[in-house]
Amino acid sequence: MSRTGAQTFVFDSAPVVAARTSIAGPKEGKGPLANEFDVILEDDLLGMKTWELAEGEMLRRAVERTVQAANLSIEDVQVMISGDLNNQIIASSFAAREIGAPFFGQYGACSTFVQSLILGGALICGGFVDNAICCASSHFCTAERQFRFPLEMGNQRPPQASWTATACGCALLTRDGDPNGLRVCSGTVGRVVDMKIKDANHMGAAMAPAVYDTITAHLGDTGRTADDYDLIVTGDLGWIGRNLLAELFRRGGVDVPDEKLIDCGNSLFYQEQDSHAGGSGCGCVASVSCGWIMNRMERGELERVLIAGSGAMLSPTSTQQGQSIPCISYAACIEGGKR
Amino acid sequence: MSRTGAQTFVFDSAPVVAARTSIAGPKEGKGPLANEFDVILEDDLLGMKTWELAEGEMLRRAVERTVQAANLSIEDVQVMISGDLNNQIIASSFAAREIGAPFFGQYGACSTFVQSLILGGALICGGFVDNAICCASSHFCTAERQFRFPLEMGNQRPPQASWTATACGCALLTRDGDPNGLRVCSGTVGRVVDMKIKDANHMGAAMAPAVYDTITAHLGDTGRTADDYDLIVTGDLGWIGRNLLAELFRRGGVDVPDEKLIDCGNSLFYQEQDSHAGGSGCGCVASVSCGWIMNRMERGELERVLIAGSGAMLSPTSTQQGQSIPCISYAACIEGGKR
Repeated sequence: MSRTGAQTFVFDSAPVVAARTSIAGPKEGKGPLANEFDVILEDDLLGMKTWELAEGEMLRRAVERTVQAANLSIEDVQVMISGDLNNQIIASSFAAREIGAPFFGQYGACSTFVQSLILGGALICGGFVDNAICCASSHFCTAERQFRFPLEMGNQRPPQASWTATACGCALLTRDGDPNGLRVCSGTVGRVVDMKIKDANHMGAAMAPAVYDTITAHLGDTGRTADDYDLIVTGDLGWIGRNLLAELFRRGGVDVPDEKLIDCGNSLFYQEQDSHAGGSGCGCVASVSCGWIMNRMERGELERVLIAGSGAMLSPTSTQQGQSIPCISYAACIEGGKR
Repeated sequence: MSRTGAQTFVFDSAPVVAARTSIAGPKEGKGPLANEFDVILEDDLLGMKTWELAEGEMLRRAVERTVQAANLSIEDVQVMISGDLNNQIIASSFAAREIGAPFFGQYGACSTFVQSLILGGALICGGFVDNAICCASSHFCTAERQFRFPLEMGNQRPPQASWTATACGCALLTRDGDPNGLRVCSGTVGRVVDMKIKDANHMGAAMAPAVYDTITAHLGDTGRTADDYDLIVTGDLGWIGRNLLAELFRRGGVDVPDEKLIDCGNSLFYQEQDSHAGGSGCGCVASVSCGWIMNRMERGELERVLIAGSGAMLSPTSTQQGQSIPCISYAACIEGGKR
């Protein structure tokens, strides 16, 4: 409940990840992490009329499954914290309409899941709620409609473009729970960093400086080094952004061994799946964190992980107006697992 | 720091409103509240190239003025919590890029200011920060571009439509401060309520049930009645939504004297200003709360006020797809003033 430094909240009584759900779309479910998702969708419309409703339904299912896994009912949810890439976060609003819990809509672009985790942790640790549903989603088809071109155009994508994942992740944080369970121990709140990149198809490059800013703030605030973490996981820098981040660490004199730095977007697809720079979207870091990363922690392969989501806060209007891309990154420290 | 009920956070050590700024656009500055704003813009472009940049600049100026009024500098801001109606809350991102403080982007449609106040209060009361900038903005021209028709069309507006205010409000909450100052004592977090209204030009009717839900939750959680408040202020229901809310209170057996129920949107314009149902937008409740309402409290005219923002969480896409409007309301209890 104390504040160590300029940007990091430390959760002295760290909230427990009581349950979690990771949902992946059909394409994501054919990638290298196929065995790490709880649910792989066969149909990315989920039986709905529109992709936007489908994205909301994916979130709703993730919340429902998570709550059931914790032996709770939907009525027990004290707060839902969620966001997505759609205009006016409509997928989260659709899901929150069905869930009916007190709701805080968030927008941190593709870093929204980590933003939600930090706020959920703060609300529990601050004594305001006993549990919090923290989630985020993205959908390839809603994002293409939103940010780029109608799918029907069959538009070509440049090699540095990323592929918005159809995916979501949901974590139920609770005040009490399995003392051996995973815990959210601290969170670093990002600042908006804009290095004047204007290419909406080159988001890894736009976001890498924001991730560098937040990770170095986290290490500075906590007095730690990369040695204190088994893994530093970035959200959706893709391979280009991930390598730029490694270069920023080198130039900044921050020692992060190459094998400790992995990117969710860079891990989501096989190269032959034609995702170009890698996966992206709010659902990328959400599903990979709630799936692969936390699974590895529970298997005892990792004890302490820093998950740094990355968000490119552009809008279709700002792109059309020639503005550069404001970026942000939130980082959460997760500890625990079977040791 | 305790939680009384299902939806209300009670701030035992209530954060102080150390400073606040209310900015209004040219049209808003010619309305009945002209003398209650800190700044009235002469030019709604604020010297910028686009309305979106102008909205961000309006927010930036509000933050700067607020911080200066509290004898702090921008570097002292520990967290900025803000949102707006634009796609991907781009105005807030533009402002946060200039401010450089740790940033939580929010989306609660036109209730975002109250959502920000509640989160800011929780982060201070929970011990995570010593101060928080809580703000929200809207701009008539960005909102029309975003949600309705290009201004150049000169489209006619139906009589039940509201007028998105060009305005913003900014409050600096601090842990310590003038013991006689205004304080945020509690906040009630809304649920998404959707009564199946699909007319994006009839938002007062869509939002009134959500406001009813949150105000009755607040009264239930705190064991209070309307007698305990000098005023119940709604955000932007306009005159139609405000009268529907009064009707819901009557039907629900909730005694709220008519003179205690006022709406910011219904107070912002003279009838001859052609705003139809009234003012709306995130900046409506933000500017009127940070201006008129808190001014009246400081003048000793009011001691305890409940401010219930109202948000219609529609998107242009959801409207085009024929979806009904998910709505939400957040309510904050403000106390204090010179007594």
